[in-house]
Amino acid sequence: MKTYFDCIPCFVRQSLDSVRMVTSDEEIHEHLLREVLQALGKMDLRQSPPVMAQQIHRIIRALTGRSDPYHDMKDQSNRLAMNLYPELKKRVERSADPLETAVRLAIAGNVIDMGINSHLTDEQVHEAIAHALEAPFDADLEVFRRSISDAENILYLADNAGEIVFDKLLIEQLPLEKITVAVKGSPILNDATMDDAESTGLCELVKVIDNGSDAPGTILDDCNKTFRQHFDQADVIISKGQGNYETLSDVKKNIFFILKAKCFVIAKNLGCEVGSLILQKSGLPASAVQVK
Amino acid sequence: MKTYFDCIPCFVRQSLDSVRMVTSDEEIHEHLLREVLQALGKMDLRQSPPVMAQQIHRIIRALTGRSDPYHDMKDQSNRLAMNLYPELKKRVERSADPLETAVRLAIAGNVIDMGINSHLTDEQVHEAIAHALEAPFDADLEVFRRSISDAENILYLADNAGEIVFDKLLIEQLPLEKITVAVKGSPILNDATMDDAESTGLCELVKVIDNGSDAPGTILDDCNKTFRQHFDQADVIISKGQGNYETLSDVKKNIFFILKAKCFVIAKNLGCEVGSLILQKSGLPASAVQVK
Repeated sequence: MKTYFDCIPCFVRQSLDSVRMVTSDEEIHEHLLREVLQALGKMDLRQSPPVMAQQIHRIIRALTGRSDPYHDMKDQSNRLAMNLYPELKKRVERSADPLETAVRLAIAGNVIDMGINSHLTDEQVHEAIAHALEAPFDADLEVFRRSISDAENILYLADNAGEIVFDKLLIEQLPLEKITVAVKGSPILNDATMDDAESTGLCELVKVIDNGSDAPGTILDDCNKTFRQHFDQADVIISKGQGNYETLSDVKKNIFFILKAKCFVIAKNLGCEVGSLILQKSGLPASAVQVK
Repeated sequence: MKTYFDCIPCFVRQSLDSVRMVTSDEEIHEHLLREVLQALGKMDLRQSPPVMAQQIHRIIRALTGRSDPYHDMKDQSNRLAMNLYPELKKRVERSADPLETAVRLAIAGNVIDMGINSHLTDEQVHEAIAHALEAPFDADLEVFRRSISDAENILYLADNAGEIVFDKLLIEQLPLEKITVAVKGSPILNDATMDDAESTGLCELVKVIDNGSDAPGTILDDCNKTFRQHFDQADVIISKGQGNYETLSDVKKNIFFILKAKCFVIAKNLGCEVGSLILQKSGLPASAVQVK
């Protein structure tokens, strides 16, 4: 995705959010802000947002000495989502179209994004679920259904902790033997890592790998060999969240982007309203679509 | 006012807003962002917001070669407010308490603040008027009324273009012979300058001076001698808007701050909700209050 300069003030806000989670010492806040501002001032401002966020959060971790500032919030999100899971699973199974309901819920889970809102309340998660189940959903589910059915290897790119429990609801509606889920290689924002996949039972359901990267998206050149092999071999990729969209929207693969458009920058890029539910196939030429 | 680091991302956003008004050339946007980020990275981040904004907008003007990026928007705001003026004046005169109605409308006019919202629509101005006339208003108007009546010299610190037409409605309810209005010395954001005071007829009503400064607030050390004399001699100061509050809230003078709390930082400082109508006397010790 083309980068918008509007992301720059948002990075500064995000940095402040992060450091405040770790310490209330205003000297450290100021020091961090200064470092981040100077780093941004020298960065190529046209890189995709996750490339820049990766560099910024490395500064935050180095300066605060905390390798995982969002650790407690990730645990909390996982617990919240696990508590909701049994009821949501029933909801999926009893619905007229379980796949559609599961996609809608996977999108609802995408609201758990501490890069956008680090003060997310349980109530907001409940509201996101209610909204996702009722909101207009302008997606070609049949193309998604057919691609899933035709695929041999499906790579599911997870996004955030907590959200991966919502992903589990969707993954359960897919052919499990074809699925590999990829999480991040190490902590970045509240993105899901292997710890989250294990604690939420995802690893018992499907094969889970990590991508070896600490970017809040999928920067292919930054990913490990195992991930690259899975990515290359997959005939369908399911990409969750804004960060994965921002880094993969121009990649020539058969990708279904599933996300909630949570800020005006991404909404503008997708040509939708903020808050829209998105299931969008990558815009590769028809001849390149891997349909068997 | 104590500075909050939350203002820093807002400065970056404001810079982008400003440069986009002047040019659609993304090379210049990037250049400007980079300059502003680097400057902020070196600045004392504990200075009051207007001190920092003054430095940032000097960079913007130097880099774009435009001494007054908000010129057209200021003209537009003045025209909009002048069109509303006759109807609003009737409204003040016919109300049970013309001073209260005029204060409420002066607060409504404070919504015309391009530092906060450079995409303000006419509809939002109308909404602000309707809100200000109806909203709860937890102010001691009698103290204000008595101070005005007892004062010999009243200095009215104007805030923005367009807004000064709303100020005119309030000034008309005050003893005109006691009033001096101060505008900014040169363009900064959409703050009112002498041009705006002249084009909206304020200069025909009362004495208007400029403060000699290009800060979006009142930094006393940066103001000219004439302004300083008026400031020192005034026994009541009426201070409009956030910028003047941010720079004068700790100054030991008899100041009435009139504003709309438009962002969460100022609301937090004032201990109110965002959107509240504020008429607040400066918190100086009772013995220092100049009541005759």
